[in-house]
Amino acid sequence: MGEVKTIEWKDDKLILIDCTKLPIKEEYVVCERYSELVRAIKTLAVRGAPAIGVSAAYGVVLAAIEGKNISNNKEQYLEFIDKAIEELAATRPTAVNLFWALDRMKKKLHTIKDLSQNEIKEKLLDEANLIYEEDVQCNKNIGKYGNDIVPYEANILTHCNAGALATAGYGTALGVIRYAHYSGKNIHVYADETRPLLQGARLTAWELVKEHIPATLIADNMAGYVMKLNKIDLVITGADRITVNGDTANKIGTYSLAILAKAHNIPFYIAAPLSTIDMNLKSGEEIVIEERDKKELRELFGQKIAPDEIDTFNPAFDVTPNEYITGIITEVGILKPPYNISIKSAKHF
Amino acid sequence: MGEVKTIEWKDDKLILIDCTKLPIKEEYVVCERYSELVRAIKTLAVRGAPAIGVSAAYGVVLAAIEGKNISNNKEQYLEFIDKAIEELAATRPTAVNLFWALDRMKKKLHTIKDLSQNEIKEKLLDEANLIYEEDVQCNKNIGKYGNDIVPYEANILTHCNAGALATAGYGTALGVIRYAHYSGKNIHVYADETRPLLQGARLTAWELVKEHIPATLIADNMAGYVMKLNKIDLVITGADRITVNGDTANKIGTYSLAILAKAHNIPFYIAAPLSTIDMNLKSGEEIVIEERDKKELRELFGQKIAPDEIDTFNPAFDVTPNEYITGIITEVGILKPPYNISIKSAKHF
Repeated sequence: MGEVKTIEWKDDKLILIDCTKLPIKEEYVVCERYSELVRAIKTLAVRGAPAIGVSAAYGVVLAAIEGKNISNNKEQYLEFIDKAIEELAATRPTAVNLFWALDRMKKKLHTIKDLSQNEIKEKLLDEANLIYEEDVQCNKNIGKYGNDIVPYEANILTHCNAGALATAGYGTALGVIRYAHYSGKNIHVYADETRPLLQGARLTAWELVKEHIPATLIADNMAGYVMKLNKIDLVITGADRITVNGDTANKIGTYSLAILAKAHNIPFYIAAPLSTIDMNLKSGEEIVIEERDKKELRELFGQKIAPDEIDTFNPAFDVTPNEYITGIITEVGILKPPYNISIKSAKHF
Repeated sequence: MGEVKTIEWKDDKLILIDCTKLPIKEEYVVCERYSELVRAIKTLAVRGAPAIGVSAAYGVVLAAIEGKNISNNKEQYLEFIDKAIEELAATRPTAVNLFWALDRMKKKLHTIKDLSQNEIKEKLLDEANLIYEEDVQCNKNIGKYGNDIVPYEANILTHCNAGALATAGYGTALGVIRYAHYSGKNIHVYADETRPLLQGARLTAWELVKEHIPATLIADNMAGYVMKLNKIDLVITGADRITVNGDTANKIGTYSLAILAKAHNIPFYIAAPLSTIDMNLKSGEEIVIEERDKKELRELFGQKIAPDEIDTFNPAFDVTPNEYITGIITEVGILKPPYNISIKSAKHF
């Protein structure tokens, strides 16, 4: 299997594949300071809820290194790391894994705050590495459990990129697809291009081509017609935040896909780690949806594609109500409705 | 009202606004030979079912002028025009107005075939001018009838471009929007950008900005979410071909929109001239759907947006079954289900 290295920690630097440059160039962003990671998250050089969480954990380690040069005073040192955590948390409002990972790093920091600066840095790095490794293992487990619902011959539609490039590795929705493909099933993927930022065309298509998994790229508006032609057996997407009742925020367009899948009696699955589930939110109505720059719809790679004067609406995500979701594939198994019950029991697993 | 000149006949030349260049440049394609129009239709410099029909009618006039230089022999002259009609008919398989307009020109030619070459050209030009004028008047009537179903305050979603740029002028779906706007209603348009060729972003947005009709551009995959936010009162699109039972072929993505509209209890209307209805086809299953170049999904304005190796599927149209269509707005009134009955009686009007 061709390995896609999305996130790597090396010589006290965080190295990220630059998702904004793919598939034209395979370039890497090297972060030595946490502020460089803040920018990388904001510009979407690193994106995908699990990848944002893992890289943010390393961002705290970057702050722990940077802080050493700033102050020998322990209190100021800890304040510096706290400030970094706050700035990292403010990068993107929807991906809950970001807050989950930062919260875990913060708790770790609290338990080791009396150690030396060097020891703090080392322990935080251990924790970030653990989050990284857990994410990869978690995705492999998602793949394994998800494989149960993939027929031996299957055309699977996916949206955006919930692949290796959206995680520490292997992917969630693409993790299920990888697992099924490498287990010998006859899998063919339809990948929505996913406007406006084309993560499907640029990232998912790139991953699938790289690993020779048979795939066809379509425009987002073709999904319904492709379903009508009986070309889709299954829809699987990732998630950016799941609430206690199973409502799921994911890349804009996921909601439309879920409705189209239901209208064609096609199973619609979410694949996501349990860390994507926000136990503080009762339903999708409480999820904050990030709106991105209006220009993203008027320009593409600097090329004008619409009049400057036209107003645009550019939500980055939408919320799919639980009744449209056949199951949520997690690292502990496939959660089924009623989600209020299955999610609570899985989170206490 | 700002006038958009889509098609103009001047000094024995056919002048077309180049829809592939908008909104970046307002350029015109000047056709002196019918083969230049064949190319303009194939490259989508002129597009939209009614615009293709009207320009093809003028294409027959171009052939009648060109033929005069090729042969004085009447039989050869008529053969030359017939061949031009065949080539024009072979440009695009889905738009029935093309065949309708060419058929009408062919019938006209048959009734005047004993006249002189000059007289034939003049009579064909009269017929093409008539088709042009009828189309504009037809669209204004569509606007007038369509206005009945537009609330005083309305957010209208449209797909692709069924505007002045898709017709001889005024537009079909945008004709209804124009009529409602200029009649003093408080209209706001949501325009789907319409991948892969972005006719919504490039053409519909351009027309709406030009005439100061309030509008917001969205990516195609946002339509469902915008409906869920209760931002849409009404969906109106054009049509490329309608069958006797009301099934409607239109730009790819229309089918998805119709399903989404139904799921949100939003009325879904088609606006099209009666010439779009193909009485030879019983249902949508008989409609030939044009597939376009796979590259249209991998490149945009020459910029690579997906790996070269990824396969693509690129249907230009889809078919919306009649049960999803609330009404078909025509120049003789709004046709309602059952369409088998309303269409037949309208066609014999």
